[in-house]
Amino acid sequence: MELSHAAFCVNYAADISSIRQAQVRIEPFVHKTPVLTSETLDSIAGRELHFKCECFQKGGAFKFRGASNAIYSLDDDQATKGVVTHSSGNHAAALSLAAKLRGIPAYIVIPKNAPKCKFDNVKRYGGQVIFCEPTMQSREDTANKVMQDTGAVLIPSSNYGPVISGQGTMALEFLEQVSGIDTLIVPISGGGMASGVALAAKSINPAIRVLAAEPKGADDAYQSKINGRITKLAEVNTIADGLRAFLGDVTWPIVRDLVDEVIVVDDKEIIQAMKLCYEILKLAVEPSGAIGLAAVLSDKFQKNPTYSECNRIGIVLSGGNVDLGVLWNSFV
Amino acid sequence: MELSHAAFCVNYAADISSIRQAQVRIEPFVHKTPVLTSETLDSIAGRELHFKCECFQKGGAFKFRGASNAIYSLDDDQATKGVVTHSSGNHAAALSLAAKLRGIPAYIVIPKNAPKCKFDNVKRYGGQVIFCEPTMQSREDTANKVMQDTGAVLIPSSNYGPVISGQGTMALEFLEQVSGIDTLIVPISGGGMASGVALAAKSINPAIRVLAAEPKGADDAYQSKINGRITKLAEVNTIADGLRAFLGDVTWPIVRDLVDEVIVVDDKEIIQAMKLCYEILKLAVEPSGAIGLAAVLSDKFQKNPTYSECNRIGIVLSGGNVDLGVLWNSFV
Repeated sequence: MELSHAAFCVNYAADISSIRQAQVRIEPFVHKTPVLTSETLDSIAGRELHFKCECFQKGGAFKFRGASNAIYSLDDDQATKGVVTHSSGNHAAALSLAAKLRGIPAYIVIPKNAPKCKFDNVKRYGGQVIFCEPTMQSREDTANKVMQDTGAVLIPSSNYGPVISGQGTMALEFLEQVSGIDTLIVPISGGGMASGVALAAKSINPAIRVLAAEPKGADDAYQSKINGRITKLAEVNTIADGLRAFLGDVTWPIVRDLVDEVIVVDDKEIIQAMKLCYEILKLAVEPSGAIGLAAVLSDKFQKNPTYSECNRIGIVLSGGNVDLGVLWNSFV
Repeated sequence: MELSHAAFCVNYAADISSIRQAQVRIEPFVHKTPVLTSETLDSIAGRELHFKCECFQKGGAFKFRGASNAIYSLDDDQATKGVVTHSSGNHAAALSLAAKLRGIPAYIVIPKNAPKCKFDNVKRYGGQVIFCEPTMQSREDTANKVMQDTGAVLIPSSNYGPVISGQGTMALEFLEQVSGIDTLIVPISGGGMASGVALAAKSINPAIRVLAAEPKGADDAYQSKINGRITKLAEVNTIADGLRAFLGDVTWPIVRDLVDEVIVVDDKEIIQAMKLCYEILKLAVEPSGAIGLAAVLSDKFQKNPTYSECNRIGIVLSGGNVDLGVLWNSFV
């Protein structure tokens, strides 16, 4: 039985209904990604782990869910002028691909220092790349100029209802694939996936625990939860290049109310988890994608008695866009 | 409708019936591995490709299918004394794991120069490692001594009916997962998988083309098919460490009759395919595992008019046991 809409969704930018609509809307385009298990990792974690492999999603990351929902939610007049975003990478590739499928232009503002494979993905999917300086101000200014010049619609990577609804479809799919999950662990950055997954999962089963995993060098969600208000950081520093964004005014209320806890891990733990993904699961998983496994293996999780009742855990491996050289260099 | 047993299976060590029995026997133990697709790779190949991800099989390779079928086919008296094999790696790990599940000892004779990750897999699964020199003579002598000392049953990696039947289950599963496949491409070494897959696939649909992919530096199956008799090579030299074995008297007749053609590719093509698996499919695939993709992208396949009618192709990614350092070093 699902919670009624009024129970907790009334002020949020998405709800179980918009997530179910998104699922129908994007179903023709997205991959239903497989769920993998490993007895070796279960034995290391002391839990039953189920890995949702969004590294196999189109574009190499879950972002295609939100991007395609956002693009296919536009009416024809809006869509014709195209879409624009400034993104650290996976959202950019996903938006390019979704725009290509709909046959509209995608203008992608990318910081000059983004990893090469993410840039390659945007080009591969036909996005029009506009470089900017690696500062938020330059990203926003450049995107605004594109909007003025072209009339394109801005599709933020996280802080936007249709994107949150699209990401939430992952939880619907995951809970259909694996019954009896008691805990979900997702990476958190801008909060689009964490919001969507929490909304979907808690609507289906309010008892499911939703945990977010965040790198120590960009722990704004953790700080925000402690302070009870959006807390931005003066600087970020983590290997998880997909997790450097901050919560926004749209995602924050959902994260505040529905994400049970943010577990902070350091880069060393992330690298170790990425290594286990490669060696045991045989998966290329980017640092941001491996952080959920890092969280479940961390002392913060393992030694917290609250989590002793988490026995059947769903972990989202959110993306696989990692240059092989980066992977190798992080190991040696 | 399936071909009758008498039509072509009468002299073989396995048939569709033994493969179906194997499927029931090992079902509680094996992973049903997912099938992945990629529009990017379809576009490169000019075909619709479906990838059977046996890199996710227990032990990291398809070998667990044959090993578990062989072990669970033993009666209790035989099983108690354990099993022994000499193997280049994946079969060894698979046999160790299957033996552990049945609670019997596995004695694994391994050449001193085997890759570290394969040795680690054997140890992880509780196999008892006995090192030998990297020659076939030393492998066989050492295994014989173990048999004399312990009474263990020899389980060859390929040239053995129950192993062939176990590997054949992969084709049953694959053809259930994807309808309308017209071509299957599998790696060939000792011929266990090629035999099992060809027997299963051609029984279900005699029109399915079964192609084997083989490295140039160990192309004994290709030579054997040309010569019409088992042809061993004086030496082998290929990066595909899992494909250095030769056909045997049990696998040869099946390969001779039911594998339509052997496509030979060089190590450069294998490495390129491994790179595509990593970058596009987000998979760790060992050189032996990537050779099917290498074959479909090769000039030998692409420029052969016979294969212009191969439109819906099933490719077996047979294993993922590749040290990250080996992967990286092969790319640079």
